[in-house]
Amino acid sequence: RSLRIGLIPGDGIGREVIPAGRRVLEALSSSLNLKFSFVDLPAGYETFQKTGTALPDKSVQTLKNECDGALFGAVSSPTTKVAGYSSPIVALRKKLDLYANVRPVKTTPSAQRTIDLVIVRENTEDLYVKEERTFQAPDGSGKVAEAIKRISERASHRIASMAGEIALRRQKVRDSGVQSIHAKPLVTVTHKSNVLSQTDGLFRETARATLATEKYAHLAVEEQIVDSMVYKLFRQPEAYDVIVAPNLYGDILSDGAAALVGSLGLVPSANVGDGFAIGEPCHGSAPDIMGRGIANPVATIRSVGLMLEFLGEEQAAAKIYAAVDANLDLGKLLTPDMGGKAGTEEVVLDILKRL
Amino acid sequence: RSLRIGLIPGDGIGREVIPAGRRVLEALSSSLNLKFSFVDLPAGYETFQKTGTALPDKSVQTLKNECDGALFGAVSSPTTKVAGYSSPIVALRKKLDLYANVRPVKTTPSAQRTIDLVIVRENTEDLYVKEERTFQAPDGSGKVAEAIKRISERASHRIASMAGEIALRRQKVRDSGVQSIHAKPLVTVTHKSNVLSQTDGLFRETARATLATEKYAHLAVEEQIVDSMVYKLFRQPEAYDVIVAPNLYGDILSDGAAALVGSLGLVPSANVGDGFAIGEPCHGSAPDIMGRGIANPVATIRSVGLMLEFLGEEQAAAKIYAAVDANLDLGKLLTPDMGGKAGTEEVVLDILKRL
Ligand SMILES: CC(C)[C@H](C(=O)O)[C@@H](O)C(=O)O
Ligand SMILES: CC(C)[C@H](C(=O)O)[C@@H](O)C(=O)O
Repeated sequence: RSLRIGLIPGDGIGREVIPAGRRVLEALSSSLNLKFSFVDLPAGYETFQKTGTALPDKSVQTLKNECDGALFGAVSSPTTKVAGYSSPIVALRKKLDLYANVRPVKTTPSAQRTIDLVIVRENTEDLYVKEERTFQAPDGSGKVAEAIKRISERASHRIASMAGEIALRRQKVRDSGVQSIHAKPLVTVTHKSNVLSQTDGLFRETARATLATEKYAHLAVEEQIVDSMVYKLFRQPEAYDVIVAPNLYGDILSDGAAALVGSLGLVPSANVGDGFAIGEPCHGSAPDIMGRGIANPVATIRSVGLMLEFLGEEQAAAKIYAAVDANLDLGKLLTPDMGGKAGTEEVVLDILKRL
Repeated sequence: RSLRIGLIPGDGIGREVIPAGRRVLEALSSSLNLKFSFVDLPAGYETFQKTGTALPDKSVQTLKNECDGALFGAVSSPTTKVAGYSSPIVALRKKLDLYANVRPVKTTPSAQRTIDLVIVRENTEDLYVKEERTFQAPDGSGKVAEAIKRISERASHRIASMAGEIALRRQKVRDSGVQSIHAKPLVTVTHKSNVLSQTDGLFRETARATLATEKYAHLAVEEQIVDSMVYKLFRQPEAYDVIVAPNLYGDILSDGAAALVGSLGLVPSANVGDGFAIGEPCHGSAPDIMGRGIANPVATIRSVGLMLEFLGEEQAAAKIYAAVDANLDLGKLLTPDMGGKAGTEEVVLDILKRL
């Protein structure tokens, strides 16, 4: 099978980690019968400064017409308001209808406290529809701005189904003999319907209805209000298996969960639609460490695995995860975000060796 | 000085902790020259079931016309959608224009890792305006619900000023010789303006402009995107002094911060307006432990202190905080949420003894 992969490094350390992702794909054993070709695609704040758009239409069209999947690095957000600038990854998720953002947060085998959860974040709506307006308060007290939070039955159903499928798939892996802290599959529905009875209420009801169908009869389903979810995530992270959440809560929860495993530099994600996936590390462009050769490549390399999983290449994905785990459990080749002294290159070479 | 305090126990363990708050007020040393009288006010889900409203107008009027401050326990949220039910505390915050929700998260003197921060949460707008609507998608794909997130210059300015004042006040206490991990006062402005450029952008710009005025010249001001804020809050909580945030982020961050100090049962809050304050523990109604006499009274007792602080009674507040710290540092009288075996009554008696 031959796969064409779009590479969108973006800004900052995105440009240091995406090449690592490419090398991992190139190094995958020929026994897997996978061939990769690559196309470099511009996007990000520097692209915006050069061309006036952060996401050139050509990049979108190339992804749509030529590619099977992609890797996205990170983009810088301007530190002051810049007219016309808008996040390219948020736009890409919508333009390619990548409706699920899947973020596994998992400790390595040697960890003292095992965490093994995955956040399944709705990726197209909620406040991310970015429908905003600003006006003067009628009473003369200054400006007022409003944004729309939109939740649809359709998107809530889709994302709940995805969460259900992922929970079943995880259970299948466990049933095949892989050790796990989870005896039974569990999906936790996150919302704030005690305040947002209609929007989050719709998310909650739709998710519950979706997960109550025959197909998911073997899943346990719970729900949790987002604020207490953050609390319990930190107190009892072992308790979670699959978490399904509207866009913004998913965004916040996944950074929170990343703190539990030691570094954002470890946490991968995949933006998933029907037949397409973009792997994306959860970290940002980290301008403070850019150009120093110390960015952690693990989140990107795991995102390569995740992309492959959603493109149906589970065996290749498993190889990548195992190589990363072995590297991390060695404990000697860690980048500074993990308290180590290794550089990006050393970590990449070690992982390539283990593939 | 004589103060009249409204007591709103609400549901669940609210009814076990609010009486503890009352006893603390009654026990305050006569040398402080404070006299308290009390009025019991109904609100909550049980009130809703009995009377059809979760916040009887009479309770609101009594607070407005007769009281100097109040204590609010907790309310249960119905687990399924109930027509007409709406959170009484959210309504109360708006009706009394209690525009700031102040949530200090602080370890006791004996803690190994010192955390000493306060979350100053905007308390009247954002998604909490609860303006929602539901309609059928024009393409026939089911229901769609929308909510308004509203951010105003006026409310953002007010809350940023409150954060600035609190930062200055905290610094004054330190300058008076109280030991602290913070050398300089810092306010961190939280937002998600990389996605919500108008709403969160307005919050960010207004807060920065407010804190850039002469009055706050001695404060350091930083900003942080909410997702990475949750991450860093867990990685480096010592780094934070005063955090100012829009309503929903403040809600989420404060539960997160509570996890850092061991239990939500320790974290107080005050809903503060001009000349009025309602003390409110950050925890919920905890139906699972209700009626067992094991609810942690500390969050409520600290909320009593916080209420008094905002009513100008800082000396009384300091006495309460010191009594609570001494009780906690004893380490022997802890409720089960803290890993101990003590009951509410034992903890209350010990704190009363130390006042
Ligand atoms: C950069 C930002 C727009 C983005 C988001 O909020 O989705 C990021 O935080 C993420 O989680 O991928
Ligand atoms: C009960 C709920 C409406 C409330 C809120 O969201 O404000 C609670 O979580 C809080 O933090 O006081």
